[in-house]
Amino acid sequence: MSDVQAVVQTAPGELEIRSFPRPKIGEDDALLKVEACGICGSDYEQYAGEVQVRFPVIPGHEPVGRIDEIGPKAASRWDLQVGDLVVVQPGISCGRCAGCQTGRRCRVVPGNAYGYTSTDITPSLWGGYAQYMYLHPATIMHKVDSSVTPRMAALYNAMGSGFAWAQEAPDLRAGQSIAILGPGQRGLASVIAAKETGAGPIIVTGLRADAHKLALAKELGADVTINVEDDDVVAAVRKATQGRGVDVVVDVSAYATQPILDAIKMVRRGGTIVLAGIKGSNRLREFNSDALIFREITVKGVLGVEYASFAKAIEVIESGRYPLEKLASHTFSLADAETAIRTLAGEVGEGAICIAIDPHMS
Amino acid sequence: MSDVQAVVQTAPGELEIRSFPRPKIGEDDALLKVEACGICGSDYEQYAGEVQVRFPVIPGHEPVGRIDEIGPKAASRWDLQVGDLVVVQPGISCGRCAGCQTGRRCRVVPGNAYGYTSTDITPSLWGGYAQYMYLHPATIMHKVDSSVTPRMAALYNAMGSGFAWAQEAPDLRAGQSIAILGPGQRGLASVIAAKETGAGPIIVTGLRADAHKLALAKELGADVTINVEDDDVVAAVRKATQGRGVDVVVDVSAYATQPILDAIKMVRRGGTIVLAGIKGSNRLREFNSDALIFREITVKGVLGVEYASFAKAIEVIESGRYPLEKLASHTFSLADAETAIRTLAGEVGEGAICIAIDPHMS
Amino acid sequence: MSDVQAVVQTAPGELEIRSFPRPKIGEDDALLKVEACGICGSDYEQYAGEVQVRFPVIPGHEPVGRIDEIGPKAASRWDLQVGDLVVVQPGISCGRCAGCQTGRRCRVVPGNAYGYTSTDITPSLWGGYAQYMYLHPATIMHKVDSSVTPRMAALYNAMGSGFAWAQEAPDLRAGQSIAILGPGQRGLASVIAAKETGAGPIIVTGLRADAHKLALAKELGADVTINVEDDDVVAAVRKATQGRGVDVVVDVSAYATQPILDAIKMVRRGGTIVLAGIKGSNRLREFNSDALIFREITVKGVLGVEYASFAKAIEVIESGRYPLEKLASHTFSLADAETAIRTLAGEVGEGAICIAIDPHMS
Amino acid sequence: MSDVQAVVQTAPGELEIRSFPRPKIGEDDALLKVEACGICGSDYEQYAGEVQVRFPVIPGHEPVGRIDEIGPKAASRWDLQVGDLVVVQPGISCGRCAGCQTGRRCRVVPGNAYGYTSTDITPSLWGGYAQYMYLHPATIMHKVDSSVTPRMAALYNAMGSGFAWAQEAPDLRAGQSIAILGPGQRGLASVIAAKETGAGPIIVTGLRADAHKLALAKELGADVTINVEDDDVVAAVRKATQGRGVDVVVDVSAYATQPILDAIKMVRRGGTIVLAGIKGSNRLREFNSDALIFREITVKGVLGVEYASFAKAIEVIESGRYPLEKLASHTFSLADAETAIRTLAGEVGEGAICIAIDPHMS
Repeated sequence: MSDVQAVVQTAPGELEIRSFPRPKIGEDDALLKVEACGICGSDYEQYAGEVQVRFPVIPGHEPVGRIDEIGPKAASRWDLQVGDLVVVQPGISCGRCAGCQTGRRCRVVPGNAYGYTSTDITPSLWGGYAQYMYLHPATIMHKVDSSVTPRMAALYNAMGSGFAWAQEAPDLRAGQSIAILGPGQRGLASVIAAKETGAGPIIVTGLRADAHKLALAKELGADVTINVEDDDVVAAVRKATQGRGVDVVVDVSAYATQPILDAIKMVRRGGTIVLAGIKGSNRLREFNSDALIFREITVKGVLGVEYASFAKAIEVIESGRYPLEKLASHTFSLADAETAIRTLAGEVGEGAICIAIDPHMS
Repeated sequence: MSDVQAVVQTAPGELEIRSFPRPKIGEDDALLKVEACGICGSDYEQYAGEVQVRFPVIPGHEPVGRIDEIGPKAASRWDLQVGDLVVVQPGISCGRCAGCQTGRRCRVVPGNAYGYTSTDITPSLWGGYAQYMYLHPATIMHKVDSSVTPRMAALYNAMGSGFAWAQEAPDLRAGQSIAILGPGQRGLASVIAAKETGAGPIIVTGLRADAHKLALAKELGADVTINVEDDDVVAAVRKATQGRGVDVVVDVSAYATQPILDAIKMVRRGGTIVLAGIKGSNRLREFNSDALIFREITVKGVLGVEYASFAKAIEVIESGRYPLEKLASHTFSLADAETAIRTLAGEVGEGAICIAIDPHMS
Repeated sequence: MSDVQAVVQTAPGELEIRSFPRPKIGEDDALLKVEACGICGSDYEQYAGEVQVRFPVIPGHEPVGRIDEIGPKAASRWDLQVGDLVVVQPGISCGRCAGCQTGRRCRVVPGNAYGYTSTDITPSLWGGYAQYMYLHPATIMHKVDSSVTPRMAALYNAMGSGFAWAQEAPDLRAGQSIAILGPGQRGLASVIAAKETGAGPIIVTGLRADAHKLALAKELGADVTINVEDDDVVAAVRKATQGRGVDVVVDVSAYATQPILDAIKMVRRGGTIVLAGIKGSNRLREFNSDALIFREITVKGVLGVEYASFAKAIEVIESGRYPLEKLASHTFSLADAETAIRTLAGEVGEGAICIAIDPHMS
Repeated sequence: MSDVQAVVQTAPGELEIRSFPRPKIGEDDALLKVEACGICGSDYEQYAGEVQVRFPVIPGHEPVGRIDEIGPKAASRWDLQVGDLVVVQPGISCGRCAGCQTGRRCRVVPGNAYGYTSTDITPSLWGGYAQYMYLHPATIMHKVDSSVTPRMAALYNAMGSGFAWAQEAPDLRAGQSIAILGPGQRGLASVIAAKETGAGPIIVTGLRADAHKLALAKELGADVTINVEDDDVVAAVRKATQGRGVDVVVDVSAYATQPILDAIKMVRRGGTIVLAGIKGSNRLREFNSDALIFREITVKGVLGVEYASFAKAIEVIESGRYPLEKLASHTFSLADAETAIRTLAGEVGEGAICIAIDPHMS
């Protein structure tokens, strides 16, 4: 069996292709042939060195692929066999140890997530930017109907975030209004989650340069879109909600802090603001905490995505109810991983929404 | 019938005693003989002009007294008669109009709270810093056992806040840990609410000058108290929670913004921070919103107190389970209202915890 | 001004037309010109004497109409004027008295609901089976867009129940499966509520004679319909949920107790059964409470409908998103009120779904 | 190493002592020296054949003991070492397999609970009525402070049920009233859980023969106790709640169905009834489901106990805040296991509250 090619990050901003031996699979684990690996904003943060990781590491925490080899105990546990198409949840933990039970680090799994575990830890293949990825016994996977293409399945992570952040975290209910700040892949996924919940009006904001994403937001079910550079976003949201203010705001905009200040002004008294957009080193220099008090606002920071949200995402992908192919804007080879990441960040290329790496594309 | 003496605020920082005619009571309303009126931090903000109010106004939104006159329909509605001891909820709204039903301003009641409604509106006596106060049909009152003194009953508002902010808002549960930042009347009330919930450890922070309040916190049931000037408060809270971080933080400190930054560091991943301490013009200049995301923290601004929290407060006051008389640090006459307010703010006097005005004291 | 014609129930099974003087409207109340009044299962129970009421009484708790006369204070409170189309919530209570605040009977309103308050109480017109209905100051109404016909607006009560019982009570979430037992007006409304929530699969059961209603359920969004006389309903529900059992069951079937026993078998472990179908004198003779324990099932009895559910209902009616005109199966005059009630119960006529009385139809 | 003595159930009502070889412990598992094993009502049901089990089986799902041998991976995972005192959660499942993730049977663990897994499955020692018990890698344990005696630690299961059923399931809040039907070990544990929550009044019911348990309930914090044979239990509960009805009812009475019918009458409108008392073959022949509807009552069947509830139980046991030694009424040897079970059921002996087996007692 030949070696496995993978992208390895050795330092902030440093990616290279390396070869690894194919891992030996035992009774209780498996090997995934990676057919697509989604890229999200945190891939850029990792690339840029804004997230602490132990190098060297194979990035990629949104892997999709087919079971290439599987031990008998693993096959029974996961109810999977060779050839099955699966998406892999990023987090890995046993759920049973003294660490997991008390909300601390898992004491069993040597790493806490795919894409963030060093290649120094056997068997090295802990990330999705690779032709094959090791599947540890504690991995949680979802089987996807074979009629779905790997490229479409690679939307599961963005879509799962939409359900986790726009529906679960704010406990969004049918009939409630929602403003989604930022029309990137997480914002568009939030539109779908809100639509599936029966929420409305669904309002999406973006920049002038986001015109194509705002148009897509409408196609997916948004009722109102707002260009924050040309319009008064707070006034526009208040108008769209008959002056009441919006029930829920989800901020998925990156680096900009103004959206959080806007959110406080546009949310109704007693409403909820979900924070999911990372601001890096930017600070809210004019944050007035009294505004949260006088208007009884709740602010929820969110990061993780649970099993149920991924399951809803996969159901939507399998259903074909939305033109999700329009979200899949770019696919790159392993060799072009750096371009893929920088395209998502808008540093190069254009029109980026959801970007994936296909490790077997040449 | 003689005139009614009341303290009237005519402008920021301007208080004077005025006389008003005793209101004529009809079928559906009543008159309260005010026997005590509690003072809270928002009385100071109102005095200082930090809260927008239509002047002239009789301050005082924590009134306690006996029914002096009551119409027959009102007596039936409230199940009250002349002589009954009652505490009055500050907010007034009909709950049935187009405004109330859609979360906007009540269209029926001419003012939205006792202590904040101008004397220009008939019959003028809309505040607790007065010998008598008008009771509008939409008023919500709680009858208090006649064995309780008016001075003790006047703790209902602080105590109600404790239940609303430390128990209801964070959904505090038995066995959860809680840090209460600020040992003023709201902080001490939060200790009692936490104790009644079965929470623990209960941690209270304060300044050097708060030593007597921290000692009282322990007497009321706090497990740990921390002097933030001499100790590393974040480290001390982490130590008190075996390194896990605290489940719930309630910030009831006034004007200081550092407690909010500390709260973010001391709360456990997935924990809740309740904001109730007004910061006035102070801004959080180094607020890092990513910290809320990476550690999945919820921040809830709280202001109002609901019927159920007041009811719990009154049950605790009636029970005699806590040495609440130690909270009642000062009582002033109408003529000394300004001193009362400034004593609470720490501008004059010392040892202030809960302060009340007794409008019939000379 | 001429007299008002109304249907009066004088005893179980006894209805007659009587005339009443038009009430004098004051500053704070109003008069509704009733243009349609929906009929539900509880109208039949009232007619049949299964619900205790003080006779004589004008039945009808689902009135729709236009404001015919309104006092100035009432107009301001409700934000309504003569000619506005409104639906009236059945319950009347002040929300502020000692009774309302402690969850007991309102001490202010002389009757607790339209359709259930005796004509002996001034001004007699307390029910919707009448040309005009009195509007007490404590009434809660919803203004309906004038483009909606009164007949369509009269669906608000059934539709509101759907949201209250199929969405709010079980906390139905997007992606959850739901079985609705009984395809009457409440069952069909539950289908719409489930559809609006993004729930699925939506399963509806009925009898052979309900074929037209089951077909309509599918048209409204049901995924699966089951004829319980020809199919094994428990097996069919389990199959439709891939063997898992259904997340939520809503029983809106009348008089039959078997659906409750079936519900216990078809719901998943940890699932919720909502009981809304009245069984009259029928008892569950084989009720095995251990089944609830071993499978950790929650059973919720539901009766009332809150403001928010009515508001969602009206939004759906105004939207035109569903072919609701197909639910409006029959309309009768006041003179035919008895036939109307007996048609709904299936004692006479056929094809009944939603039935209304038009008090001005001759 | 000598053989391990254990009680084996071979058929309904058939217990015998058998010897098993001491299991070989590997890297990832451990052996418990059982020092006490609590007995609950379900032990009697299992003995009597009312619960389906695959024979032969070693009963006992409430084991307490010290780690006797432990593999290095297991020691790291559980953060435990030889000599540590632990209590073992009864359920065993991996939490990660296709079965666990979709709410079905675990595909990895060969049995789903200690005390219910056949000795035919290697290494046989799957129950607490034995000198030693095997600890599978998926086991969840809680370390108990070494100052606690094994006999006191054996109360963890009853105490955990109290928190799960009286506090978690009904979402009991401070200030709410609760009626606990049945003063057995689960009822007394519910009293403690209610007390820890700040609930009140706490009402406990029992039979004439339960006088000593009702007295103990008062000592633990109950406000009111009712002898259902001499008093009108519904009237007494209504009186204790000033006529309002009780917020929460927890039924932990065995076999009697009348308590459920009483519960429906004593709970307040909108209240919650938790069902935890198994009724065996007894059916509720007069169950009137309409009562749940007209008074909007929720009925929750409960069975399992989660990690957090066990943790609270252990905290209470370690705290010494309650005279728990009074609950520990009897301790028997392995040879007397049948007597132990029958004593708990009241068939022999008297004064039974919490009963344990000490497998090393002779």
